[in-house]
Amino acid sequence: MAAASLAFIRRARRSDVEPIVRMLADDPLGSGRERLEDPLPGSYFHAFEALDRDPNIQLVVAEDGEGVVVGCLQLCILPGLSSQGASRGLIEDVRVAAHCRSRGIGEQMVQWAIAQARSRGCRLVELLTHRTRVDAQRFYARLGFAPSHVGMTLRF
Amino acid sequence: MAAASLAFIRRARRSDVEPIVRMLADDPLGSGRERLEDPLPGSYFHAFEALDRDPNIQLVVAEDGEGVVVGCLQLCILPGLSSQGASRGLIEDVRVAAHCRSRGIGEQMVQWAIAQARSRGCRLVELLTHRTRVDAQRFYARLGFAPSHVGMTLRF
Repeated sequence: MAAASLAFIRRARRSDVEPIVRMLADDPLGSGRERLEDPLPGSYFHAFEALDRDPNIQLVVAEDGEGVVVGCLQLCILPGLSSQGASRGLIEDVRVAAHCRSRGIGEQMVQWAIAQARSRGCRLVELLTHRTRVDAQRFYARLGFAPSHVGMTLRF
Repeated sequence: MAAASLAFIRRARRSDVEPIVRMLADDPLGSGRERLEDPLPGSYFHAFEALDRDPNIQLVVAEDGEGVVVGCLQLCILPGLSSQGASRGLIEDVRVAAHCRSRGIGEQMVQWAIAQARSRGCRLVELLTHRTRVDAQRFYARLGFAPSHVGMTLRF
């Protein structure tokens, strides 16, 4: 079992974009997709502004005891007609800083997202995790997620 | 190959909720989840109003030559920081009326969604399809989608 975490989960601010991108880039799949430059490409900030003003999207970060950002997660609440018009929660871009793994921070963020989704009327939370992320699949299964679907992607 | 389709794709209206729910319910997985009653439960219309006012969500229907609704698809455009701040398109609730399958209507709707997502700056379109929907997986693979991810769900 992971040790109890002391992370503090809060809504992401513009100043969190850099540490979030750092975590997205520090990853076998993400390293080829991100551009961790100084300054960061403006596209990251445009995206932050778009999601920050969307009432159905919550990008959150986990802060450690010193106020350092050590995790991130994006939750989208999606209305839809199926399941009697119940909204769905979609969890995306879950990352924990490499030096902070196995402390329960990921679990704390995902449990936060599940609770948020429930409180906003969702009956389902879903996510896609790359086939090669076997540890992630084990982690989500432990939190109650079933590998019920195939996640299909088309990249341009 | 499917015959060329003559379906007309347009934004769903409130009066389309009933034929859409009919298609969602006419399905081995959906039949236990929907309530196809007369009148329909109000939850479907509340959900329709929520998605109809969301600028990032497009629920569309396919009409046949007589103006009858024979298909539906929901596309969500989701801003996010990963992939240099590129938005993602999420395709959900794709259905074609049972008597209209194998005519290319599903393909027409999905190609519409891909084109929409591209035109709105997405670099990726993603979807979850139930593991048991092997025909659907073959259909999406033919349109260029890769079964790159595991789709995990938690139902309350």
